[in-house]
Amino acid sequence: MDIATLRAQHPDHWKLASAIRALAMDAVQAANSGHPGMPMGMADVATVLFRNHLKFDASAPNWADRDRFVLSAGHGSMLLYALLYLTGYKQTTLDEIKNFRQWGARTAGHPEYGHLEGVETTTGPLGQGISTAVGMAIAEQSMQARFGKKLVDHRTWVIAGDGCLMEGISQEAIGLAGMQELSNLIVLWDNNDITIDGRVSISDKTDQHKRFEASGWTVLACDGHDPEDIDRALTKAKKAKGPVLVDCKTFIGFGSPNKADSYAAHGAPLGDAEIAATKEIYGWPHGPFEIPADVKSAWEAIGSKGAAEHAEWTARFNALSEAKRAEFERQVTGSVSKKLAGAIRKFKKEQSEAAPKVATRKASEMVLGVINPACPETIGGSADLTGSNLTKTKDLEVFNPDNRKGRYVNYGIREHGMAAAMNGLWLHGGVRPYGGTFFCFTDYARGAMRLSALMGIPAVYVMTHDSIGLGEDGPTHQPVEHLAICRATPNTLTFRPADVVETAEAWEIAMTQARTPSVLALSRQNLPTLRTKHTNQNMVAKGAYVIEEAAGKRQAILMATGSEVEIALKARDLLQAEAIGTRVVSVPCMELFAQQDEAYRRKVLPAGAVRVAVEAAVRQPWDRWLLGERGREGKADFVGMSDFGASAPADRLYAEFGITPEAIAAKVKAML
Amino acid sequence: MDIATLRAQHPDHWKLASAIRALAMDAVQAANSGHPGMPMGMADVATVLFRNHLKFDASAPNWADRDRFVLSAGHGSMLLYALLYLTGYKQTTLDEIKNFRQWGARTAGHPEYGHLEGVETTTGPLGQGISTAVGMAIAEQSMQARFGKKLVDHRTWVIAGDGCLMEGISQEAIGLAGMQELSNLIVLWDNNDITIDGRVSISDKTDQHKRFEASGWTVLACDGHDPEDIDRALTKAKKAKGPVLVDCKTFIGFGSPNKADSYAAHGAPLGDAEIAATKEIYGWPHGPFEIPADVKSAWEAIGSKGAAEHAEWTARFNALSEAKRAEFERQVTGSVSKKLAGAIRKFKKEQSEAAPKVATRKASEMVLGVINPACPETIGGSADLTGSNLTKTKDLEVFNPDNRKGRYVNYGIREHGMAAAMNGLWLHGGVRPYGGTFFCFTDYARGAMRLSALMGIPAVYVMTHDSIGLGEDGPTHQPVEHLAICRATPNTLTFRPADVVETAEAWEIAMTQARTPSVLALSRQNLPTLRTKHTNQNMVAKGAYVIEEAAGKRQAILMATGSEVEIALKARDLLQAEAIGTRVVSVPCMELFAQQDEAYRRKVLPAGAVRVAVEAAVRQPWDRWLLGERGREGKADFVGMSDFGASAPADRLYAEFGITPEAIAAKVKAML
Repeated sequence: MDIATLRAQHPDHWKLASAIRALAMDAVQAANSGHPGMPMGMADVATVLFRNHLKFDASAPNWADRDRFVLSAGHGSMLLYALLYLTGYKQTTLDEIKNFRQWGARTAGHPEYGHLEGVETTTGPLGQGISTAVGMAIAEQSMQARFGKKLVDHRTWVIAGDGCLMEGISQEAIGLAGMQELSNLIVLWDNNDITIDGRVSISDKTDQHKRFEASGWTVLACDGHDPEDIDRALTKAKKAKGPVLVDCKTFIGFGSPNKADSYAAHGAPLGDAEIAATKEIYGWPHGPFEIPADVKSAWEAIGSKGAAEHAEWTARFNALSEAKRAEFERQVTGSVSKKLAGAIRKFKKEQSEAAPKVATRKASEMVLGVINPACPETIGGSADLTGSNLTKTKDLEVFNPDNRKGRYVNYGIREHGMAAAMNGLWLHGGVRPYGGTFFCFTDYARGAMRLSALMGIPAVYVMTHDSIGLGEDGPTHQPVEHLAICRATPNTLTFRPADVVETAEAWEIAMTQARTPSVLALSRQNLPTLRTKHTNQNMVAKGAYVIEEAAGKRQAILMATGSEVEIALKARDLLQAEAIGTRVVSVPCMELFAQQDEAYRRKVLPAGAVRVAVEAAVRQPWDRWLLGERGREGKADFVGMSDFGASAPADRLYAEFGITPEAIAAKVKAML
Repeated sequence: MDIATLRAQHPDHWKLASAIRALAMDAVQAANSGHPGMPMGMADVATVLFRNHLKFDASAPNWADRDRFVLSAGHGSMLLYALLYLTGYKQTTLDEIKNFRQWGARTAGHPEYGHLEGVETTTGPLGQGISTAVGMAIAEQSMQARFGKKLVDHRTWVIAGDGCLMEGISQEAIGLAGMQELSNLIVLWDNNDITIDGRVSISDKTDQHKRFEASGWTVLACDGHDPEDIDRALTKAKKAKGPVLVDCKTFIGFGSPNKADSYAAHGAPLGDAEIAATKEIYGWPHGPFEIPADVKSAWEAIGSKGAAEHAEWTARFNALSEAKRAEFERQVTGSVSKKLAGAIRKFKKEQSEAAPKVATRKASEMVLGVINPACPETIGGSADLTGSNLTKTKDLEVFNPDNRKGRYVNYGIREHGMAAAMNGLWLHGGVRPYGGTFFCFTDYARGAMRLSALMGIPAVYVMTHDSIGLGEDGPTHQPVEHLAICRATPNTLTFRPADVVETAEAWEIAMTQARTPSVLALSRQNLPTLRTKHTNQNMVAKGAYVIEEAAGKRQAILMATGSEVEIALKARDLLQAEAIGTRVVSVPCMELFAQQDEAYRRKVLPAGAVRVAVEAAVRQPWDRWLLGERGREGKADFVGMSDFGASAPADRLYAEFGITPEAIAAKVKAML
C-alpha cells in the first residue's frame, strides 16, 4: 500500500506509525549513527501488533503473563525504543530517546536486556532473537502445564529480518520450534529484500515459505504497509496450530524519497534534508522528537489497554493459596528452593564416605538426581548427547507436544540453538535451564553463550568430554583452548571439578547464581573421590584451595584442575618421597579465586616455592597464577597442552603429551 | 532392499560392500571404540559411488582434476578408511586399519586431513563437511573459469547424516550452494532416521526434500541398499542443474540382527558375538580384517579405473605451454607469486612517506589493492559486510552463476558457512581464500576457524571493528575476549596491526603461510601512520619490536597492539615529560614473538623496568609478557577491559573505560 492511500484510508494508524518513524529518523540523526530504515519499514506492522494483538500493560512491564516481544533484528532498536516510549513504559523517557547510543543512556545501539523494562532480550548478533524466542515459548508452555492456563497463557512475537533468517542458528530454531509445535510463537518477517551488501538475491534465493513449511510452520503473508492486511494475518496467526511465520512485505526506509528500498536507509542517518523531505511525504510537520499530544495519548491508550486483562489476571492470581502464589513468585523470580542447600550437603557427605570412582560427568548426573527433585523449575536437555552428557535424570520426562510437563528437552544436534533457547527459558522466567554437549562444541554455541554472559543469565552449560581424556575421538572432539575461551569471557564461571564432591559444590554454586552463567567442564574418564573428608563448607566457592598440604618444608606448589588434580597428587607423592615438600592446590574455578581477598590468595599461593600448573589445555589462563599476581614470586612451569590433541586411548595420550606425575616431578626438580 | 534379495541379485556388489562392512565392524571392535553403524548403513551407496561415478585414481591421490569425496558424517570414518584401503591408496595399509584410533596411526577416530591421502578434509564436528564441500565446489568452478574445462571439470560428493543437516551451519551451506547453482555438488544423505538420542523425530520433523528444494536444490531419492536404484539416482544427479541432494534411505548397522536400525549400532563396537552373527547374515565367512583376494582385486580395479582418464588429462596438461603449466602448478600447490614481496615493499615505502591517517580496515583494503592484482588466485568475500570490512577491491568482480571468473563471494549473513567454505576453497587447491566479518562474530565462525587451524589451512580472516573503538553499536558488537580466544587457539596467527605499515606486513605474513590461518583484527577508527621511517624488513614478523625507545634511563616499558599503540606513545610523551624513560613496544603478533629466540625476547622486554600492557581487551594473554616469562621480572600492570563494553562514541568509551595516556602514565608512576 502506498503512502497516499495509507494516509487517506487509515489516518489514525498512519499517525501512530508516523510517530515511530519520526522518532527513529530523529534519534539516529541526533546520534549520528544507527539504523533508521528498519523501524521505518516495520512501523506499520509494529503498530498493528501493539495496537490490536500484543498482550501487555506498559505500567507493569514484568507482568508474568504478558506476551513477549522480541526484536530479533536488533539493529532496528529505535523501533522498540519508540514503542516503549510512546506506549508509556516509564523507563523509556524522551530524554533516553534523545540520548540514543550515548554514554550512560539506556537506549544502547542494540537493545540490551536489563537496560530498559520492555526489552525482553539482548539482540543484535543476528539470529539470536528468533532462537531465544523459541526458549521463551517453551518456557510458557512448561509453566502453563505446571500452573494452568489461568495463570500462564501468552504468546511470543518476534520481528526478524533477512539477516536473522540467513544465519544458521535460525534453522536450528525453526526445526526445534516446528518439532515442538509451539503455537504460541509467531515470527513477523521483515521481508524488505535488502541486506547490507545489496538485494537479498545476491547471496540467497531461498524460498522462505517453503523452508518454514518444511519444518511444520504455518506461513502467512501480508502487505506490511496495509494495516488491515496486517491485522488479518496476525489474527489468523493466533489461531494457527504450531509456530507461524508471517511474511510482511515491506520497504526499508519506507517513504524516504531518495533512500527507501535501498541499503542507503539501512545503517546510517538519513541526513537532515532527507528527513525533512520524508516528513513532508508523511504529512508530519513536527520538529525533531516532537510528538503531538493527541498522538502520544492515542499511543498511551494502547499502552494501558491491557491493564484490565492484567487486573483480571491479578485477581485470579490472588485467589490462589498463599503457598501456590509463593511458589509461582519464587519460580518466576528465579530464586532457588531452600531445599537445595541441605540436599547438596547430604549428597556431599554420602559421597565423601562412599568415595566412588566416577567420571565427573557421572558425578554431575548424580548431583542432578538431587537437584531436579528439589527444584521443579529446572529444565534440562542435551544437543543429542544425552547418554554422554548424562543430563537426563530418571525423574525427568521429555518435554514435547504430548507432554508439556516434561522437563527434558531433546534439543537435537543444535548446540547454538540450544544455548539460545536456554537464554530464552531464563528470560521468560519460571524456568532454570541447563543443557549439555561436548565441551569442544562450545565452539558452535559461543554466540549464544556470550549473550548468556552479557545478559547475566545463570544458565548452566554441562560440557562433558573436557580434554584429551576423551581419547579416541581425536582432536576434533578434544578441547584444548576452550577453558581459556570460557575464562576469557567476562561474567562466566568456568568450573572444572576434580571429583564427585567438587562437582556437587560447583553445581550448587551454578544453581544459586542470579546473574552469571556457569560452564561445567566434566571428564569422560573415571576419577577417584579426593575429598573423602566431609565438610559443609563449599570449597569450590573459594575458587582454589589447598587439597593436600606439603609435608615438611614447602618447596613446591602444584596447581591443577579436574582430572589433573589426581595426577598432581601422584606427582606430590613422588616429590615427597624425595623429601621435597609439595603442596597441591585444586583450582576448580579461577574466576572465584580471583574474587577472594588478597590475603586468601596469598595464603593458598604463597611466595617462596616453585610452582607448576597442570591442566590438559593451553597455558594462557595460568600465567597469572604461575608467575604471581605481582610478577615476582619465583620460578614456575606448566604441564599441559600446547597444540591440538590426537586420537588414541586416553592413558596413552596423557603419557605421550607428557601430562604425568613423573613429568611434573621432573619440572619441579629442574627448578629447585 | 533386504539382504537376501541383495545377495541373490547383486552378488558382486554385495561382496564389495560386505568388505567395507566387515572392515568397519572389525576395526571398531579391535579399537574397542568407534562407530560401525554408519559405514554399515552407507556401504552400498559408497560402493556404487566409487565403482560407477567417482572420478579418481587411487595411485594419484592428488590429481588436481579428481572428484572430491567428503565424509561429512565423520564419525563413520571407517567407511572412508575401508574405501581407501580397498581401492589401493598406498598410505592406507591394512596395518593402519588394524591400528584404527591408536597412537601413531593415521586412521584417527575422525578423518583428519593430512594424515592420509584421500582424506580431503577433517570432519567430525557435524555440518562442517557439507559446508566445506561448498567451498570446494566454488573453487572448482573458479578454476574451471580460469583454466578451462579441459583441465578442471570434476564434482564434489558429500555423504552427510541427519546430524549434519540439523546443525545450523548446514543451512548456510545449502543457501549458499543453492544461490550459486553449484551443479558440481552432490550430497548423499544417509537417511537412517537415527540420532544418538533416538529416532530423528524426537528432535526434528523437518521435511528435508522441501527444505533443500526451497533453496534451489534438486532432490532425488533412492533405496540406499539397492545398487541399481542408487546408480539410477547418482546418474541423474550428475545431469541436474544446480546442487543435488540424494536422499538415500538406509538402515544404520544394516544386517546386524540385534542392533540394526537402532542407536545401539551408532557409537560402540557391536561385540564379537554380534559381529559373528552379522557376518553369518552377510555370508562373509572371513576372520577379522580378512579380505579375500578376489574381493580385494575387484576393489583395486575400481581404484585404478580412473587411471586412463587421468592419463588423458595429463596429456592435455602437458600440451600446455610451460608458463601455463607452471602457473597452474603454482596455484594448485598454493605457493605465493614472486611478485608479492616487491609489491608489498613498494607499498610500505609509499605509505611510510605519505603517512595517511586511516583505519587499519581501510589500510587492509589498500594492501589488498596490491595483493589481488599480484595474486590471481585470491578469492575474497565477506559475510554481508563488504562496505565495513573493506574486503572488495575494485579489480575484483563478483563470483556468481553468471560470472565464474569473479573473485569475490557474497557469502551472505553466514559467518560460519563462510569460514567453512574458505576451508574448502583452500583444500580444493588453486585458490587462496580470505573473508571478512566483524571480529566479534568470530563467535559464529569458531567451529570452522578451529578446523582451519587444525587442518593447517592458511585462510585469512579479515576481522574488522576489533574493539570498543567501533563505538555506538555497543557490547554485542564489541570484541573483548576475542583476541584471547584466537591467541589461545593452536596454530593460529593473530595480528593486530597498529597502522598501515604494520597492516601491510601482517598481510604479507598471512599470504605467505602454508599451514597456518591468520586472523587480522582491524580497527574501525582512523589511526595515524606510526612507521614513517621505511624499512624493507618485516617488523611484524618479529611479533613484537621496539617502536619507540626510551630517552634517558629506561624505567618503564609499555606494550600495546593496534589502536592502543598510539595511546601508549602518547603516554610515553607524558612520562618522558617527567623524565621517566619509557620504551614502547608494539606487539602485533604474540605467536610470532613467542617463536623468536630468547635473546631477542629479552632484548625487547629486558628486566629492570616496570611494564604496562595496553589493549582494549581482556588481560589473559598478557600475563606471560607482563609478569615475565620467568616470573621474576618486576612490577607490571594492565590497561584494558575487564568486562563487556558499552554503546557510545568511541572516544567516550576509551575515556570511560580508562584506556587513556593519562591512565597509563598513572599506572607506571604508581609502580616506580
